[in-house]
Amino acid sequence: MKKIIALIVFLIMMTSPSWAAQTIESTAKNIQEIRISLDSVWVILGGILVFFMQAGFALVESGSVRSKNTVNVLMKNYMDACLGGLIFWLVGFGLMFGVNSTGWFGMSHFIPDDLDDWHWNILFFQMMFAATATTIASGAMAERINFIAYVVSAGVVSGLIYPIFGSWAWGSLFGGDGWLKALGFIDFAGSTVVHSIGGWVALAGILVLGPRIGRFGRDGKSHYLPGHNLPLIALGGFILWLAWFGFNAGSTINAGVSIGRIALNTHLAACAAAVTYMALAILTSKAILLKTTINASLGGLVGITAGCASMSPLYAVFTGMVAGVIVTYMPLIMEKLKIDDVVDAVTVHGFCGAWGTLAAGIFLESNMFNSGVIYIQAIGVGAGFVWGFGVAFIVFKVLDLILGGLRVSPQHEQRGLDYTEHAELSYPEFQHDITFEKDDITKRH
Amino acid sequence: MKKIIALIVFLIMMTSPSWAAQTIESTAKNIQEIRISLDSVWVILGGILVFFMQAGFALVESGSVRSKNTVNVLMKNYMDACLGGLIFWLVGFGLMFGVNSTGWFGMSHFIPDDLDDWHWNILFFQMMFAATATTIASGAMAERINFIAYVVSAGVVSGLIYPIFGSWAWGSLFGGDGWLKALGFIDFAGSTVVHSIGGWVALAGILVLGPRIGRFGRDGKSHYLPGHNLPLIALGGFILWLAWFGFNAGSTINAGVSIGRIALNTHLAACAAAVTYMALAILTSKAILLKTTINASLGGLVGITAGCASMSPLYAVFTGMVAGVIVTYMPLIMEKLKIDDVVDAVTVHGFCGAWGTLAAGIFLESNMFNSGVIYIQAIGVGAGFVWGFGVAFIVFKVLDLILGGLRVSPQHEQRGLDYTEHAELSYPEFQHDITFEKDDITKRH
Amino acid sequence: MKKIIALIVFLIMMTSPSWAAQTIESTAKNIQEIRISLDSVWVILGGILVFFMQAGFALVESGSVRSKNTVNVLMKNYMDACLGGLIFWLVGFGLMFGVNSTGWFGMSHFIPDDLDDWHWNILFFQMMFAATATTIASGAMAERINFIAYVVSAGVVSGLIYPIFGSWAWGSLFGGDGWLKALGFIDFAGSTVVHSIGGWVALAGILVLGPRIGRFGRDGKSHYLPGHNLPLIALGGFILWLAWFGFNAGSTINAGVSIGRIALNTHLAACAAAVTYMALAILTSKAILLKTTINASLGGLVGITAGCASMSPLYAVFTGMVAGVIVTYMPLIMEKLKIDDVVDAVTVHGFCGAWGTLAAGIFLESNMFNSGVIYIQAIGVGAGFVWGFGVAFIVFKVLDLILGGLRVSPQHEQRGLDYTEHAELSYPEFQHDITFEKDDITKRH
Repeated sequence: MKKIIALIVFLIMMTSPSWAAQTIESTAKNIQEIRISLDSVWVILGGILVFFMQAGFALVESGSVRSKNTVNVLMKNYMDACLGGLIFWLVGFGLMFGVNSTGWFGMSHFIPDDLDDWHWNILFFQMMFAATATTIASGAMAERINFIAYVVSAGVVSGLIYPIFGSWAWGSLFGGDGWLKALGFIDFAGSTVVHSIGGWVALAGILVLGPRIGRFGRDGKSHYLPGHNLPLIALGGFILWLAWFGFNAGSTINAGVSIGRIALNTHLAACAAAVTYMALAILTSKAILLKTTINASLGGLVGITAGCASMSPLYAVFTGMVAGVIVTYMPLIMEKLKIDDVVDAVTVHGFCGAWGTLAAGIFLESNMFNSGVIYIQAIGVGAGFVWGFGVAFIVFKVLDLILGGLRVSPQHEQRGLDYTEHAELSYPEFQHDITFEKDDITKRH
Repeated sequence: MKKIIALIVFLIMMTSPSWAAQTIESTAKNIQEIRISLDSVWVILGGILVFFMQAGFALVESGSVRSKNTVNVLMKNYMDACLGGLIFWLVGFGLMFGVNSTGWFGMSHFIPDDLDDWHWNILFFQMMFAATATTIASGAMAERINFIAYVVSAGVVSGLIYPIFGSWAWGSLFGGDGWLKALGFIDFAGSTVVHSIGGWVALAGILVLGPRIGRFGRDGKSHYLPGHNLPLIALGGFILWLAWFGFNAGSTINAGVSIGRIALNTHLAACAAAVTYMALAILTSKAILLKTTINASLGGLVGITAGCASMSPLYAVFTGMVAGVIVTYMPLIMEKLKIDDVVDAVTVHGFCGAWGTLAAGIFLESNMFNSGVIYIQAIGVGAGFVWGFGVAFIVFKVLDLILGGLRVSPQHEQRGLDYTEHAELSYPEFQHDITFEKDDITKRH
Repeated sequence: MKKIIALIVFLIMMTSPSWAAQTIESTAKNIQEIRISLDSVWVILGGILVFFMQAGFALVESGSVRSKNTVNVLMKNYMDACLGGLIFWLVGFGLMFGVNSTGWFGMSHFIPDDLDDWHWNILFFQMMFAATATTIASGAMAERINFIAYVVSAGVVSGLIYPIFGSWAWGSLFGGDGWLKALGFIDFAGSTVVHSIGGWVALAGILVLGPRIGRFGRDGKSHYLPGHNLPLIALGGFILWLAWFGFNAGSTINAGVSIGRIALNTHLAACAAAVTYMALAILTSKAILLKTTINASLGGLVGITAGCASMSPLYAVFTGMVAGVIVTYMPLIMEKLKIDDVVDAVTVHGFCGAWGTLAAGIFLESNMFNSGVIYIQAIGVGAGFVWGFGVAFIVFKVLDLILGGLRVSPQHEQRGLDYTEHAELSYPEFQHDITFEKDDITKRH
């Protein structure tokens, strides 16, 4: 039977060789289409997971503040997702991935309404990255920043700071290379491009804002202001970790065979960082703090983000361990300097991102411990700091002048931003010490 | 050149025709199997995400009620998933997708135990849709409905109201077309089929139930009854948004190259709706409410559900903006009419679903602003209202008569349904004003 | 004619036969690579979802304890993920999947740093399973176990108890079969391998620890100690259910066409179990408890885990119904025996896992009600109990001796482990009855 089929096939081919060509062609086309479909599924799944990071940040941050500022923090995170999406679509994508003739920014594909199938995927995926970079700063500046000023600054991160730096390291899709990319800078999924940038923006913000009332007393002593809901922090940590698999493994952009090791490296680095913190706490007879444990794992995740695709698991574990050490001790230095970072975002995203970017160079498996590679990585780290911190510092200073204060009034700060900005309480039945007139619900104070 | 290639292939085949035939056959079969596998992965992933909507609804709704009714709302949502799954398997699937000779309902494949591989996927995916349509009403009717009456009504939605309307618009899989489908009605992922239907069921329910005690005073004034836990609402909003990517992009059923734009449209509409609400609040100097912000984004998601696959991003943004306006103002009208919808489900799902279904016609990219298309869409919207509201109204009225009251007694309502229906408190350590005898744990009141 | 054709064939084949062969070869290679890529996506997605189980357990368990022990439970779950990952990588993978010449354990591939692409996926996926098996016990032993003792025992589960049993039933990847596997033991996704093992470890732990202070009074009466936050339990239930689709359908390891029925069976069993409990509660006029409803659905999920790939939906529903009965009544027996299992983990994971493993044999579709098959299943169930309970009992007894008490002091137990182990409070603004000196933040008590 098979021989007969083959014979028929062969006879038809004889009579019409173009038919045979078509068969071969259509097979190739089918394979190609499945490949693109599979890659699309992978990138969209990655983007969906990265979107969920917003929920993770919202929970970590809202659990880390006092209950009187919870709604405010949640609103900032929610708006980061909403504004980040819109603004990246309007201008960010064009600046980051448009035709980049200078190496410094793209100049096409603004407000894209007619891309090809594949580029919709990239826009969707990258839109979520922009929102992530944006939202990193919200927690650091919590409990004292003016809501509208925050919203404006978030727009600047999504539409300018993130995409411009992104164009240097990852651009372009439509012609021309960013200058950092051209140098050979390695930042696979964004230890610097996303996390350090976000961390340095946060640093600029909290330097302009100053610490919360009561954080550092008149006596110069540090007073810990505990977060009001630790289960939210833990859940936020789990959600961020979950989402990070989309962030790192999704950054392959194609559903290749390498995603297993990337996911594994991501996981091991987070595990190693948290265990390192726990071991340090036990060895020094300190309490094992939930918040620091979770921050340590997040530091490990930030750290492995740059090099997750180009180092072996052993080095991923080592990268995570160093991140664990950074998260254990860096906040103590920040405290000494009287810098008030509510969620230690500068440490977790800024410093661990810088470490991770260097680690990606140091442990690059094809070229380990090569000083040239490490030097280029250091240039990228430095450029990220100068650009992210510099522009953000100017923006926050300008907002401070324009709006008559980046910071809310001391009265509002003490009453809590939930009441003054949103006329809502996070737990109206349980916050017995906050007076709240029900008829105020539609007014802003 | 192609002809030469074909000739060479053919010549080699000649030398061993059976080998060649096998190769061609097995290649085609492999490709076909991979295609089905990939589509299966996509549909199952979509179904998993849509399942997670239940968690999103449970959080939004339980955060929006007073703490004395929290367990009750959570239980209703959990039961929606459980009953919705079973009942859709027992009868819903057959009614919706069975052989449909009349155009009005299917009549085969009840209690399916032996489908082919592909149809298991569809059953799984659609089962989650049925549960979603069902659970929309639970929040609107919260804090006053009898638990068993609710459970019965949920069964009717999963097993009758949803699948019958679904058979009109989406049926059938096994022969025969629904009458709305035959007309050319467009509702890609269910703005009407799932969301409006759920919203109109909710409307029927709250009209039969009447407002909660204290919601509208004797003086005729409206009294806001604030939800007890706003972080739950925010997390619920994020989870629903996340799940919506499975809802909309998963509705392609095949993992095609178009999923990127669908996911993007979904996201942009949600962003645009929330930003529109925020802008309106700022421009009118109103407080920016967390709950309304989240509802606005959900309204945007509901709105884009019908047309996400057939409009370009610019129109998706516009569709979302209109949804944002609806969510901003429609609840004020409902309040004027003294209709008590605890979570504004009628606005978010009913009205935004109707708008989205019209928008899918108005902005249909292949045939924009065509009055014939819009007219058909309006017929679908109208049919959804008549069927969803009509049947649900009768069901709730009948339940009201049979059970001696759809609504719990005023004493139970004031004490809270957690105690009277479940003998559990949501936060036993923090609800100091609710007395609770521990030995009551196994009794129902 | 034939001669002419033969001549042409001969001439053209002479010119370039290898090119044609290459074309056919490269097509086959492309197809093969897509297949592996697709399977990788599926396995990694499964692993990501199974990771998220940790969040589900953390929420169910932290909501089920009193607020003074919430941080402690969250930390134990977080550490299970971190330690479980690292230890499984270090030794577990080698013991479970390494070359297994005896049938009793593997002996290669420890600390894997250079696996091939495909095996990274398996390591990632299985790492999450190990952490799941580990974390099952944490809830049962909550509110009284020493943190460091718990962490050590968790390491033993991830690195010894789970992988050794796993090697019997599922090993090996690199040569040699486990003895249970060789017998024909069926446990598709781990009703016994993961869940019963976890449940029996929990049973050993709570027998060594004894009940919490106040759980069983001096009068011999049982006193219910209600969990402090029921919304967390509900959300945890939803997350576990969500993750279970990755657990069961992901266990195909390849993205085949069978995943739809597996997902459906998983869902139906959970639905049926919860509805069965609800029906029993209504029929016996008992309160419908949220916690038991959720446990019933989890029991259904545990029960279907072994047989989800080899029974039809009708039997999946039946398997779930029996699990619902077990979860309804087994805790009453445990209470009579004065065994204090805070979250009923022994019932849900231990007993429902045993039932599910038997059910997988009883309802095996290719060989239903075969006593030989059922006998082998019973051997597996028994071996799981002997190994899991036996080794864990010894480990907990040894830890009890080494550390001068597996259990914290009565003073610490009454004050709450959050304060004594972590110097943190879960809700510092709402726990008015717990005194807390802020300067204690860095000390362990």
